[in-house]
Amino acid sequence: MQIAEPLQIAIDELSKLPTIGKKSAQRLALYLLNRDEEQVRRLADALVNLKKDLHFCKRCFNISEGDYCEICMNEKRDSSIICVVESVNDVISIEKTNEYNGLYHVLGGVLNPLAGINVEDLKIKELLRRLQTEEVNEIFLALNPDTEGETTALYLARLLKPIGVKITRIPTGLPVGGDLEFADEATVGRAILSRVTLE
Amino acid sequence: MQIAEPLQIAIDELSKLPTIGKKSAQRLALYLLNRDEEQVRRLADALVNLKKDLHFCKRCFNISEGDYCEICMNEKRDSSIICVVESVNDVISIEKTNEYNGLYHVLGGVLNPLAGINVEDLKIKELLRRLQTEEVNEIFLALNPDTEGETTALYLARLLKPIGVKITRIPTGLPVGGDLEFADEATVGRAILSRVTLE
Repeated sequence: MQIAEPLQIAIDELSKLPTIGKKSAQRLALYLLNRDEEQVRRLADALVNLKKDLHFCKRCFNISEGDYCEICMNEKRDSSIICVVESVNDVISIEKTNEYNGLYHVLGGVLNPLAGINVEDLKIKELLRRLQTEEVNEIFLALNPDTEGETTALYLARLLKPIGVKITRIPTGLPVGGDLEFADEATVGRAILSRVTLE
Repeated sequence: MQIAEPLQIAIDELSKLPTIGKKSAQRLALYLLNRDEEQVRRLADALVNLKKDLHFCKRCFNISEGDYCEICMNEKRDSSIICVVESVNDVISIEKTNEYNGLYHVLGGVLNPLAGINVEDLKIKELLRRLQTEEVNEIFLALNPDTEGETTALYLARLLKPIGVKITRIPTGLPVGGDLEFADEATVGRAILSRVTLE
């Protein structure tokens, strides 16, 4: 049996999404086929509107419905600190904590020469421009503590040091509620080296 | 930060899909936001067309572009045997083997009283009607060898026995290329009980 063409097309398009392989795509397509037309239409519209109604903030490259994002437009936020993150996903994660009140700068990736992502592919030039035009006291590097994230943080720290801005980074350590017994050696090793004094 | 509404809607709609949770939905939505409009439009169109152009075969409930599916319309197929499966997914799996040349009957699920799926929710009435109007010699129950699949197969076998049709089922055993050492106990146990004679 040839798989019916509309099904094959849907499977092909779905399997272009990250983490969705051919088998998952087939299952998703057949699931949608069993739902009512209204639900499928709602999903399709939501995806199209996502692209139509959302843009990237011209200042920090967070997602935004207008030229500038909600965070950049919010006068109550502390504009003297910029948190540098890899992606919009990270902005959402940090915002969910309600612990940060500064601005952001979304790099749009991390340095990864093997995957062809170099300095000019990230919004680093734009970050430097912000440092010239905005009054910034602190750059908070909240990049993931993996090889690429650390490399990028190191690169940025060296680049920004001459400017004289304070540079901080997200600490590594055990997760809250974590367990020394089950943590990986790299995490425990790093936690030991960067132990903090109880005051 | 409130998540921008178009993004929140897309996340909500995506997370209604099976096996996709809130976090995956967010990652998929942000991925699409970074693709060009053309690709997102192709995906959305494919999903809408899936529902618009595909129906279920009026005879066997396989997917079909017209009233009857390709398999039911194919005169070269052996119409004296009906393979009963849970879902269209299973039809595709069996067709891929090129080993089966009969017709199908898609139940649209398996008996699962705990999940509220009872006899009247499956296409069992329709299967009985086919047995009255078509000349069928064999019903091949190709349901999954799990609790619900076995229960359904047992129910169907008892229901169909009085009709006098030959009833077969898919055998359980080790997968081709499998290894006794790594197979689970239930599979090995069942394989031992249903061992076959070498001829």
